[in-house]
Amino acid sequence: MTEDFFERGIAEIIELGSFKKKLNSGKKLRIKMGFDPTRPDLHIGHAVGMRKLRALQDAGHTIVFIVGDYTTKIGDPSGKNKTRPILSDEEIKTNAQTYFDQAGKILDIEKTEIRYNSEWLAPLNFNDVLQLTGKFTVAQLIERDDFEKRLKSGSDLGLHETLYPVMQAYDSVMVKADVEFGGTDQKFNLLAGRGLQKKMDQIPQDIIMVQILVGLDGKEKMSKSLDNYVGITESANAQFGKIMSIPDSAIRHYFELATDISMSEIDEYMDEITNGKNPKVIKEILAEEIVAIYHGRKAAEDAKQEFEKIYSKKETPTNIQTIHVAKDESLLDVVSGLDVFKSKSEARRKIQEGAVRINGEKILDLDAKVTEGTIQAGKHNFYEIKWKN
Amino acid sequence: MTEDFFERGIAEIIELGSFKKKLNSGKKLRIKMGFDPTRPDLHIGHAVGMRKLRALQDAGHTIVFIVGDYTTKIGDPSGKNKTRPILSDEEIKTNAQTYFDQAGKILDIEKTEIRYNSEWLAPLNFNDVLQLTGKFTVAQLIERDDFEKRLKSGSDLGLHETLYPVMQAYDSVMVKADVEFGGTDQKFNLLAGRGLQKKMDQIPQDIIMVQILVGLDGKEKMSKSLDNYVGITESANAQFGKIMSIPDSAIRHYFELATDISMSEIDEYMDEITNGKNPKVIKEILAEEIVAIYHGRKAAEDAKQEFEKIYSKKETPTNIQTIHVAKDESLLDVVSGLDVFKSKSEARRKIQEGAVRINGEKILDLDAKVTEGTIQAGKHNFYEIKWKN
Repeated sequence: MTEDFFERGIAEIIELGSFKKKLNSGKKLRIKMGFDPTRPDLHIGHAVGMRKLRALQDAGHTIVFIVGDYTTKIGDPSGKNKTRPILSDEEIKTNAQTYFDQAGKILDIEKTEIRYNSEWLAPLNFNDVLQLTGKFTVAQLIERDDFEKRLKSGSDLGLHETLYPVMQAYDSVMVKADVEFGGTDQKFNLLAGRGLQKKMDQIPQDIIMVQILVGLDGKEKMSKSLDNYVGITESANAQFGKIMSIPDSAIRHYFELATDISMSEIDEYMDEITNGKNPKVIKEILAEEIVAIYHGRKAAEDAKQEFEKIYSKKETPTNIQTIHVAKDESLLDVVSGLDVFKSKSEARRKIQEGAVRINGEKILDLDAKVTEGTIQAGKHNFYEIKWKN
Repeated sequence: MTEDFFERGIAEIIELGSFKKKLNSGKKLRIKMGFDPTRPDLHIGHAVGMRKLRALQDAGHTIVFIVGDYTTKIGDPSGKNKTRPILSDEEIKTNAQTYFDQAGKILDIEKTEIRYNSEWLAPLNFNDVLQLTGKFTVAQLIERDDFEKRLKSGSDLGLHETLYPVMQAYDSVMVKADVEFGGTDQKFNLLAGRGLQKKMDQIPQDIIMVQILVGLDGKEKMSKSLDNYVGITESANAQFGKIMSIPDSAIRHYFELATDISMSEIDEYMDEITNGKNPKVIKEILAEEIVAIYHGRKAAEDAKQEFEKIYSKKETPTNIQTIHVAKDESLLDVVSGLDVFKSKSEARRKIQEGAVRINGEKILDLDAKVTEGTIQAGKHNFYEIKWKN
């Protein structure tokens, strides 16, 4: 592993010395990463860690994916946590497959060890739970940032919630993890694994926490729910266009976390911007690099050309979907029927805001009749209108 | 039930109105009381609650004894709590038998429902534990007095310890308890049962917390470890003598909690003392009443006469053990050989303090030769000395 591996995109490693020692030992390491099967959609923020996992996989180490199916089959016993829906075995399997299909764009899934934690959690009885919880103190658990906040704010923290870190820690023991990957928001649970391994006479796992990629807004963490993300299975064109929408202030961050461009090269690009170059040109390089990771170089170059054609030269794209409409349909009805806006009322608002054009011209009248030609709804969506026969 | 039942020896009832309503409903109530099989020895402090249980049993209600065998088979998972030894099934059974033999002096054990909580706790899996703990909040559990103190003092509170109240509460659900008896130190756990029953759609149990009987010292709670107790299986003479040793200030307390003498009669006795009567005479009435509960009236009267013979008339008791000693044995050797003092050094100290008499005369010289006659070691132990042939 290069020094770059230990620094770039890394928030914290516990403990760096120990991790390096393990890497140099010649042993084939077991590198754990957990996955919540309620949220199978991967974006390029998730890829920051996965690309590091790929590097470790290429170096001969074993990536162990833990599918947290056990708790997903249970849901939230208190019924309060909406982000913990109960899923059936079938749904979990489908979600896991979706996840692995996406992860397969980065990792070699054939070489990845996939484990469902119900394998060792389902057989535990009350006595086993007492034995495990006996290795943790209450003080230690309520120290967890979010637990502490909720306790202090008087909002209810369910007793069962203190058992989730125990389960995640037990996962580490059961797969004999040498290293665990996770987000900084998982630090507590990752450390719990380390602690439990020590108590159960295993060499404690080292912990690698990767940095969080900022979303397209340049402010919030990238996430599906904030709709500021680039999905790793999105089309090359969609990815390219989305990356071009990030604020200039986020260019370096994206280069560092989301591409393999060397740090010295990144420095050069940033210098060029400082010296007066249009950031848009550098952003195109960034976008091409990112798209190339998921779709290959050729597709990335095509996406760039397509982008320039649409956005820079104000032309319509070459491949657009054709829709057939009746001659007397109103603009609002046609636009609501497209797969662009969430509801008719959103379509109404967007039209009134000037987000819809026919043949390049903004149409604000909801009742206007459409004409044959090109309709553009929002920045990125073009359709060709033909009359129904 | 008389009003006396709801007041005398009662520390708190939650809720009195509901409990009375249940009693008046004509329903045969299920009255739960837990028992920790690591401590099977009953003293007259335990009897305060048990005598109330007997009254309820006589009124046709069902007493349900819960033997907490499940956790006793586990011990303390953190290994820190010495009062939670691991016992085998055999030991638990023996302890339970010892307990029921003693409880049988107060309750009709034939009519008592005896349940071991491993019956429903052993089959629970991790999911079940999550479901149960999901009905409690962390805030609620760490509010428990001793938990809160330990958290604040920085002493380790094991996470598993928060599961014990959950188990005890689940016991109430499983036996469908209408009422639970316990000490005031158990208030939190008793309330947990109430809470869980509500959440699991049962009518919540009412809670009866009995007063704690003060020990023979008149200060500390009666307990075996403080050696200030009167065991319910002790001999009539031993019980009588021990009760006579309580301070005068504890007479009313003992009358109220440990006898069935009416409150008005107690008032009269106390008035007599106020008016100059020797408290010793009233204490003899008290002692006789208590002994009569466990050994019958005749034995209690005999114990009283025996006591008066020894202590009041400074006579030796009629039935004393004969020991045979060699003519040249020293007092120290003889006294050490009796089953009275813990060690030879204690025997030495006691002799020097004047606790040993031969034929009524204090002997302080350790090397004095014993003579034939009566030897008294400590207040209560008399032996007849004869020469070895």
